[in-house]
Amino acid sequence: MSASAAQPRAEAAASAQAAGGAPFRVALLGHGTVGGAFAVLLSERAEEIERFNGRRPVISGVLTRSRGEFAELLAGADLVVELMGGTEPAREYLLAAMHAGKDVVTANKQLLSQHGEELFETARERGVRLRFEAAVAGAVPVVRVLEESLSATPIERIHGIVNGTTNFILTEMSAGASYAEALAQAQRSGYAEADPSDDVSGRDAAAKMAILARLAFGTPVHLDDVLYEGIEQLSSDDIEYAREFGLGLKLIGTAERREGGVSVRVHPAFLYGGHPLASVVGPFNAVTVEAEAITEITMSGPGAGGRQTASAVLGDVVSVMTGGARPPAPPLALPLVKDVANAFYLHLDVADHPGVLAAVTKELGEQQVSIKSVVQRGMSENARLVMVTHPVRESRMRAAVQAMAGFDFVRSPPRTIRVIEEEFI
Amino acid sequence: MSASAAQPRAEAAASAQAAGGAPFRVALLGHGTVGGAFAVLLSERAEEIERFNGRRPVISGVLTRSRGEFAELLAGADLVVELMGGTEPAREYLLAAMHAGKDVVTANKQLLSQHGEELFETARERGVRLRFEAAVAGAVPVVRVLEESLSATPIERIHGIVNGTTNFILTEMSAGASYAEALAQAQRSGYAEADPSDDVSGRDAAAKMAILARLAFGTPVHLDDVLYEGIEQLSSDDIEYAREFGLGLKLIGTAERREGGVSVRVHPAFLYGGHPLASVVGPFNAVTVEAEAITEITMSGPGAGGRQTASAVLGDVVSVMTGGARPPAPPLALPLVKDVANAFYLHLDVADHPGVLAAVTKELGEQQVSIKSVVQRGMSENARLVMVTHPVRESRMRAAVQAMAGFDFVRSPPRTIRVIEEEFI
Repeated sequence: MSASAAQPRAEAAASAQAAGGAPFRVALLGHGTVGGAFAVLLSERAEEIERFNGRRPVISGVLTRSRGEFAELLAGADLVVELMGGTEPAREYLLAAMHAGKDVVTANKQLLSQHGEELFETARERGVRLRFEAAVAGAVPVVRVLEESLSATPIERIHGIVNGTTNFILTEMSAGASYAEALAQAQRSGYAEADPSDDVSGRDAAAKMAILARLAFGTPVHLDDVLYEGIEQLSSDDIEYAREFGLGLKLIGTAERREGGVSVRVHPAFLYGGHPLASVVGPFNAVTVEAEAITEITMSGPGAGGRQTASAVLGDVVSVMTGGARPPAPPLALPLVKDVANAFYLHLDVADHPGVLAAVTKELGEQQVSIKSVVQRGMSENARLVMVTHPVRESRMRAAVQAMAGFDFVRSPPRTIRVIEEEFI
Repeated sequence: MSASAAQPRAEAAASAQAAGGAPFRVALLGHGTVGGAFAVLLSERAEEIERFNGRRPVISGVLTRSRGEFAELLAGADLVVELMGGTEPAREYLLAAMHAGKDVVTANKQLLSQHGEELFETARERGVRLRFEAAVAGAVPVVRVLEESLSATPIERIHGIVNGTTNFILTEMSAGASYAEALAQAQRSGYAEADPSDDVSGRDAAAKMAILARLAFGTPVHLDDVLYEGIEQLSSDDIEYAREFGLGLKLIGTAERREGGVSVRVHPAFLYGGHPLASVVGPFNAVTVEAEAITEITMSGPGAGGRQTASAVLGDVVSVMTGGARPPAPPLALPLVKDVANAFYLHLDVADHPGVLAAVTKELGEQQVSIKSVVQRGMSENARLVMVTHPVRESRMRAAVQAMAGFDFVRSPPRTIRVIEEEFI
């Protein structure tokens, strides 16, 4: 055996043997939907995990608001699993656990997208593992694939449907429901919270895209660096009109290399029918990873649900027990590019006087917005002008929209939605 | 730091340090399309890999039919990558490498599906890693996801499109081409070999499903245990008729728990439009994994191509360098179930005399085949009877087909194609 890579694993096995099959002690922080499901799943699978790894995982203690004492839990644990959510005290506990030399697993997207660098740096300094598969897309193993299968692959772009609530709502709207009806349906079905603002505003998806961008490009991305728009402003009208262009409507997160830097953003977007994300419906999540050497890989599955999320957490626990996973790499520093080019759908309510189309196209032309297709509907005072543009810088499109909003024949604020160009068909 | 899991990784890092950033030496067996692409990709990525892992991977030697000497290569290598294909001498070389304590990476599906247990057992005994992501679905990371993310998950079923050549041919046929035209097109496009028999017979897919079944269910599955049918017997007619039922046609590999055992098989199958594999077109591969806790996860991407396959091989190399991945688990012994139930499409060319439908349905009824839908077309001597059945045991369907072949009004051998029931919509 060579002196290098194979060595430690043999020792891990030896150490498990030496531990005489002693239980692998998991301290659990948080016992809500996911925490509770994780505890159940762990006990269901403990025997099978022991068969593979030589040690049986057990919950050695649980911390909730009303019970448990962190210092005591920490002292008696081999691993800390954080499923409490929120940034504090989750951050404090994870830092303390890593400083004590413990490996940690978390599903906390808020925390990772706002304090990720502090956590990564601590893990690196202390030589411990920090795993977080469940923070991004539930049971869809995109974190592991980026961290491991594609760790030596220069990623070009990630597109993701990473919020199941909004995808459910948009699926319902595509079937004819209004936004309000679709939201109410999502709430009745348990896919949306009573206060859905974190989901429908795009903020939840933005946190997940910040995490994916950090993994894919190695550069720190804070939640505040992610441009995001939600779905509250969408109308069934937009979906209806887009159908004429053969487009579907999704809330899409994008993280991509652009102009020597990285752009990370979340917004409603129309997709051409052949796009791998166009067929993802209901509360599912899906992520497409593009890179030159792999062309593209798409992964999809349930994005939420206590048991599905718990399954991803348990995968991380087993990964820590197995001894895999490297410490987080030191960060690179790539610029974050904010003003990128997109194709746009543009909707104008206009009074159909002579010269309207000429005035609109002149304004678009001055901002170098080039039109790909156009449909005009209705007559006289009640016409609608719907266009899809070629890719144009966001700032130019914004300037054109502002100018057009001032035209006397434009009867309500112009609406724009990004269009993701189909590149594979 | 706890005495257990975190320990070995720190030592791995220390050992890399101790090696003073010495190159990580990769012996490459085989230098064809994939081997050549791998060597190029490795040199492109060496610097980035060194940044993460502290050691720079280098090709320390290449063995082909005309150059290199195995014993010498082995002595100077930290890892052996086998990309020669075929069972011998690949098997002999991999066993020798593992006996010498070297980790190994291979993309050899023939070898793994025929001598997998011998290889797994040797890896286990010697405490070395045996990785083979590229053996199953090219750049689609299904092996890693099964081995790691889902290692503690009791898998219920895997459906896969794991042969890009046949999926390309079927996509062309769905667009109207005959089998012969589609095959010729695949050969012109480089998606099919001059001798395509391994692909179109289903044997290539069967080898991959044997490997996936071993991973998912832990029980040895030899290529000879896999029932397979190819696509040579399909007609454009079948595709046309199936369209009336809202079905698409794919070559589907299935590995699933059935009746206390495991069934592994490959055959052409009709899929309902909502099935996650129904939209996979051209030379792409896709795999859907079903389990209670995760519902279902689908992964798709390019299934072949030198650079894509090389990318999966490189992912395995990095995984070995990182120190992750457990040795293969000892096998379970589950029975292999061969006579399973499927829904069937049944095509009969009949002379449309009075009583034909009654005779057919009576025969089906005697074999407990229950009919879900039926379409009759044409008249008098030239009628066609097309049915879709509810799930029925294969042996019963075969018996019914044999009996019907003997009816005097049946004008050509009855044709059957399995139908995969949509369970998620």
